[in-house]
Amino acid sequence: MNITATPFDLRLRHTFTISRGSRDIEPCILTEFEHEGIVGYGEAAPSARYGETTDTVIAFLRRVDLRRFNDPFDLDTILAYVGGLAPGNTAAKASVDLALHDWIGRRLGQPLWRLWGFDGTKRLQTSFTIGIDSLPLIEKKVREAEPYNILKVKVGVPNDEEIIRTIRKVTDKLIRVDANEGWSTKEAARDKILWLEEQGVEFVEQPLPAAMNRDMPWLRAQVHIPLIADESVMVLSDIPGLRDAFDGINIKLMKSTGLREGLRMVHAAQAMGMKVMLGCMIESSIAISAAAQLSPVADYADLDGNILTTNDPFSGVRVEEGALVLNYAPGLGVERR
Amino acid sequence: MNITATPFDLRLRHTFTISRGSRDIEPCILTEFEHEGIVGYGEAAPSARYGETTDTVIAFLRRVDLRRFNDPFDLDTILAYVGGLAPGNTAAKASVDLALHDWIGRRLGQPLWRLWGFDGTKRLQTSFTIGIDSLPLIEKKVREAEPYNILKVKVGVPNDEEIIRTIRKVTDKLIRVDANEGWSTKEAARDKILWLEEQGVEFVEQPLPAAMNRDMPWLRAQVHIPLIADESVMVLSDIPGLRDAFDGINIKLMKSTGLREGLRMVHAAQAMGMKVMLGCMIESSIAISAAAQLSPVADYADLDGNILTTNDPFSGVRVEEGALVLNYAPGLGVERR
Repeated sequence: MNITATPFDLRLRHTFTISRGSRDIEPCILTEFEHEGIVGYGEAAPSARYGETTDTVIAFLRRVDLRRFNDPFDLDTILAYVGGLAPGNTAAKASVDLALHDWIGRRLGQPLWRLWGFDGTKRLQTSFTIGIDSLPLIEKKVREAEPYNILKVKVGVPNDEEIIRTIRKVTDKLIRVDANEGWSTKEAARDKILWLEEQGVEFVEQPLPAAMNRDMPWLRAQVHIPLIADESVMVLSDIPGLRDAFDGINIKLMKSTGLREGLRMVHAAQAMGMKVMLGCMIESSIAISAAAQLSPVADYADLDGNILTTNDPFSGVRVEEGALVLNYAPGLGVERR
Repeated sequence: MNITATPFDLRLRHTFTISRGSRDIEPCILTEFEHEGIVGYGEAAPSARYGETTDTVIAFLRRVDLRRFNDPFDLDTILAYVGGLAPGNTAAKASVDLALHDWIGRRLGQPLWRLWGFDGTKRLQTSFTIGIDSLPLIEKKVREAEPYNILKVKVGVPNDEEIIRTIRKVTDKLIRVDANEGWSTKEAARDKILWLEEQGVEFVEQPLPAAMNRDMPWLRAQVHIPLIADESVMVLSDIPGLRDAFDGINIKLMKSTGLREGLRMVHAAQAMGMKVMLGCMIESSIAISAAAQLSPVADYADLDGNILTTNDPFSGVRVEEGALVLNYAPGLGVERR
């Protein structure tokens, strides 16, 4: 059992800006897990928000020695070992989890959604992300988003209202809003959200910094649309404490350490009556197709990270009429272009 | 796709008495799911406590028409249909869930524990149940339980203390206690439990009737050993409301409607920091082996329902040195004797 890591750069179609900063290139890492002649693919999309870079991912993966195991099916044992090598490093850990899941699916000749007992014919609409930009460029992007029925708009900057008004001038599509921790007081967040409600916004993601979780029940009582946790939720054990703070959680494989924890989080959120959203970083079709395996049991999807790039080295889940379309290929359902 | 149901009687080694009543024979129902030449086995062990009998199970299964589906892997769709046919009927529903899981494992040539990514070499100790009986017979049973390292003692009758003292005279084995809703006030339960703590009891199951869940946080604060929910918890959505009331939950497939909901319940309980116990009814090696598939991720097992019988028509999970030993046979790992 062996795993290799290869850095690669995803080029962005447009400079991508959120409340924390801008970028044109997204460095990612391809993992390949080989055993008994079968190769499983995984991917890490490291995020500075969580203290990861290409270097930290490569350094972490160098420490992962899978030769001590002999059965890739034993995910609990292998992932407990990987998880225990160091705290954090969630994207690096996810890249191992994804490669093992892909290998298992290929070994059994089954897509993961089928192994998990999901209805793979379900087609969940995915939103298309409109980053923070000059107003003319935002107009242009909204027109480019023509194939998508839902827009996810990044806000959390002083001219939030202007951004939303510009979009509403061009389209009456469903809008979801992501503040990325960009509002700094609960009162400011309340005022913004009450205004966004009037613009027909469906829900708001992460209005306040994760460190302000304690203010969220107050904020939630002041507004009428769902509030979804993103930066506030990483793994399973975070969920119970958020029950009064948020209406739902955004599960991203790069935060959750992968599919295994992600699936557990779906179950825990559903037990608590919380909505499940699937989110992503800027990442290739490997990680997007992995997250899409969970789409039959999710409420909302924002799985467009691969679509925002121009040189995705893999193909996998497709989008038709704005909806994710799972395929019947084994594992994550991906192949090299 | 076709499912058939065949009633059969399990004969009990000894008359089995708990706080609700006695019996010598346990009527069960074998289900056989056939598709593409592969047969998957399931079982219903109906319980009067939950309003089920052989007749209600057979009547329910007559209404289950699986010919409308073409993929047994699509558990979510099939089990949603089965679940929606009528409320309750949880053992009947479990018998379908088990047969489908067994079929999937056989189709893929893999035991379920392996498909779920569990460490199948883990050996969880199971308790052996000592029902309510005359004191001499209890002594005899405790001696018969020699291969087991943990005794689960049924109490909830006026002479609880006498039962425990009789057992403690014969053995210093670990004792767990199941009151089966048998104590009727929170003060009585407190007094009993404080006394049981002095006898070295590890935990107490279902001290009060399920209808008294609201008294449980008070009781929990008065005692020092874990309190485990049994009759108070059926399915996933029951768990969040029990977080302050109990330290853990007893998952029984005949309550949960089967393995799919059972696995979800494991994840939800773990997210909330609650212990997971696997329990059973009097049932054959089919349902016991099914529950044992979850044992690598459980904290406690009480999977002895098949051992209490003399005519188990199937073999499956074995017990060695008091611990459950999973096998590598596909699906539930069972075969006809």
